Amino acid sequence: MLSGGVGGARFLQGLLHLAARHGASPRISVVTNTADDWWLHGLKVCPDLDTVMYTLGDGIDVERGWGRRDETWNARDELAAYGVGPAWFGLGDRDLATHLVRTQMLDAGYPLSAVTTALCRRWEPGVELLPMTDDRVETHVVVDDPDTGEQRAVHFQEYWVRHHAEVPAHAVVPIGIEDATPAPGVLDAIAQADVVLVPPSNPVVSVGTILGVPGIREALASTPAPVVGVSGIIGKDHVRGMARQLLGVVGVEVSAAGVAEHYGARSRPAEPGRPGVLDGWLVDEVDAPALPRIEAAGIAARAVPLWMTDADATADLVGEALGLASQVATGTAAGRAGTDA
Amino acid sequence: MLSGGVGGARFLQGLLHLAARHGASPRISVVTNTADDWWLHGLKVCPDLDTVMYTLGDGIDVERGWGRRDETWNARDELAAYGVGPAWFGLGDRDLATHLVRTQMLDAGYPLSAVTTALCRRWEPGVELLPMTDDRVETHVVVDDPDTGEQRAVHFQEYWVRHHAEVPAHAVVPIGIEDATPAPGVLDAIAQADVVLVPPSNPVVSVGTILGVPGIREALASTPAPVVGVSGIIGKDHVRGMARQLLGVVGVEVSAAGVAEHYGARSRPAEPGRPGVLDGWLVDEVDAPALPRIEAAGIAARAVPLWMTDADATADLVGEALGLASQVATGTAAGRAGTDA
Repeated sequence: MLSGGVGGARFLQGLLHLAARHGASPRISVVTNTADDWWLHGLKVCPDLDTVMYTLGDGIDVERGWGRRDETWNARDELAAYGVGPAWFGLGDRDLATHLVRTQMLDAGYPLSAVTTALCRRWEPGVELLPMTDDRVETHVVVDDPDTGEQRAVHFQEYWVRHHAEVPAHAVVPIGIEDATPAPGVLDAIAQADVVLVPPSNPVVSVGTILGVPGIREALASTPAPVVGVSGIIGKDHVRGMARQLLGVVGVEVSAAGVAEHYGARSRPAEPGRPGVLDGWLVDEVDAPALPRIEAAGIAARAVPLWMTDADATADLVGEALGLASQVATGTAAGRAGTDA
Repeated sequence: MLSGGVGGARFLQGLLHLAARHGASPRISVVTNTADDWWLHGLKVCPDLDTVMYTLGDGIDVERGWGRRDETWNARDELAAYGVGPAWFGLGDRDLATHLVRTQMLDAGYPLSAVTTALCRRWEPGVELLPMTDDRVETHVVVDDPDTGEQRAVHFQEYWVRHHAEVPAHAVVPIGIEDATPAPGVLDAIAQADVVLVPPSNPVVSVGTILGVPGIREALASTPAPVVGVSGIIGKDHVRGMARQLLGVVGVEVSAAGVAEHYGARSRPAEPGRPGVLDGWLVDEVDAPALPRIEAAGIAARAVPLWMTDADATADLVGEALGLASQVATGTAAGRAGTDA
């Protein structure tokens, strides 16, 4: 599976719930976005890795969707008392420990992938958690600065946490991505998978940056496994996050079909260097009218309930994705027929 | 003033209390020991600087004598859950913020003295807080390892916080001290002082390491100001800390007179490169019998109540030290007669 933060983590919970339902013990590798990472107070903070790790390790604050349960904020308040910003981003006291361990290991020379493995020894998330890359990649967004009116590039966290994605944005730039290489295990996990799932994470700054690491898109295009995704857009808006805004920035139609076309079909010729990655695509029932358009693009599509309201509903959704993957793999699906057209 | 941690901080409180009693606003520079500093979880921790800063800035945990009031320990507990030690040394959540700010400024290239000034902008300790040096100096103690029985050099914090100074010690080594230079302002503060006070801090690992920074002992020997100290030994033991043990390690008699002789008289010829630093010395009333011996060593001595039981008692003690300094400076003290002998 690929994963961003909250959406990917919940989808993974559904996958594990589904496995438990069937008494199955699937081996799951999760290639996680690291382009939201940043350095704060000298510490390396990896929001998506931690959201997945805390969620599956039962340490997440369920209400907030990120950070630690039973969190306190004394260090944050003290930093503010020192006048040390940013005021719009606080690290919890429990969460700080994760960043301290990570930063100390990075400083000692361990790559992020090894650090992540070490952190997961405590959390036992039940999956192999892989950063998309051990290299530093940071998404910046060019926005209209609300104070000056001038265009300015800000870290994704500033765009999202400080500005709530409410300032006009003009470009999304994953800095460093062209020089990044996939972390150890990433390409093998994709090549050896039975199924690859693309969760309803952000198609621009989560799945999009994972696909932007040279080699990963190609690995998805060439894996023998079926690749099935789930739309994070229902109707004309995202379920959570800021996909609507960022799809607009990169010129992609804000719809389940638009995102499917943006990812592209594995079966169709694509622009050179940018092969498509999808065999199948799940949209919400309200988007059923878009199914023919998606199938015409060479992607098997189904309309099912997409809302991950609880573990059971999410497990059902994952079951639908796996069902579609199975159909795609055997070539018996109606969608496959569309692909063959 | 020179200062270690708790003893120096309390003595300083007494000095400020005395000043307030008289409506005076003395300009006070505090040259503080940094040889207890260490790096923990990638953060620079300066116990003595922080004890003075928190104490005078009204942020100290009074009961404990160190660290922050209303402290929580969630990050420490989480680090333990990750299996990240040492288990015997925990940083509080509020305290962590100080170390984060400090480390980030050090990483940005600011010297410790500038960082300390920046931190003090928040705490307004009412004194100029100066690290003894901007260079890295770390006291290590050679001990019998309780697990193996072998001799091993451990950081002072491990000797003190982990082993409670209860393991046999063989040497005290302030690593890096011979290459250290006094921090900006230290030598000027000593040269331009009206009075220099040496608080009842540890003569080996607090005052001793300050004096060990090349140039500081010489500055004390040559300042026109009188230099008066207060014994941290009452009877045959220290008031607080582990001076008894460490004086034994360096071969100094554990007594008020022994420590006075160890510091040495400014008026007397000393071994080359190790001039004496004291004009006057306060001992507790129980040590009055030692006064003739101290005076014979060329140091004006008085016996007064040394216990810093509360701010008033401490202010009285500081008043005695200043009184002795004044007597020494005018040459009218009986002790001065002893010095002239």
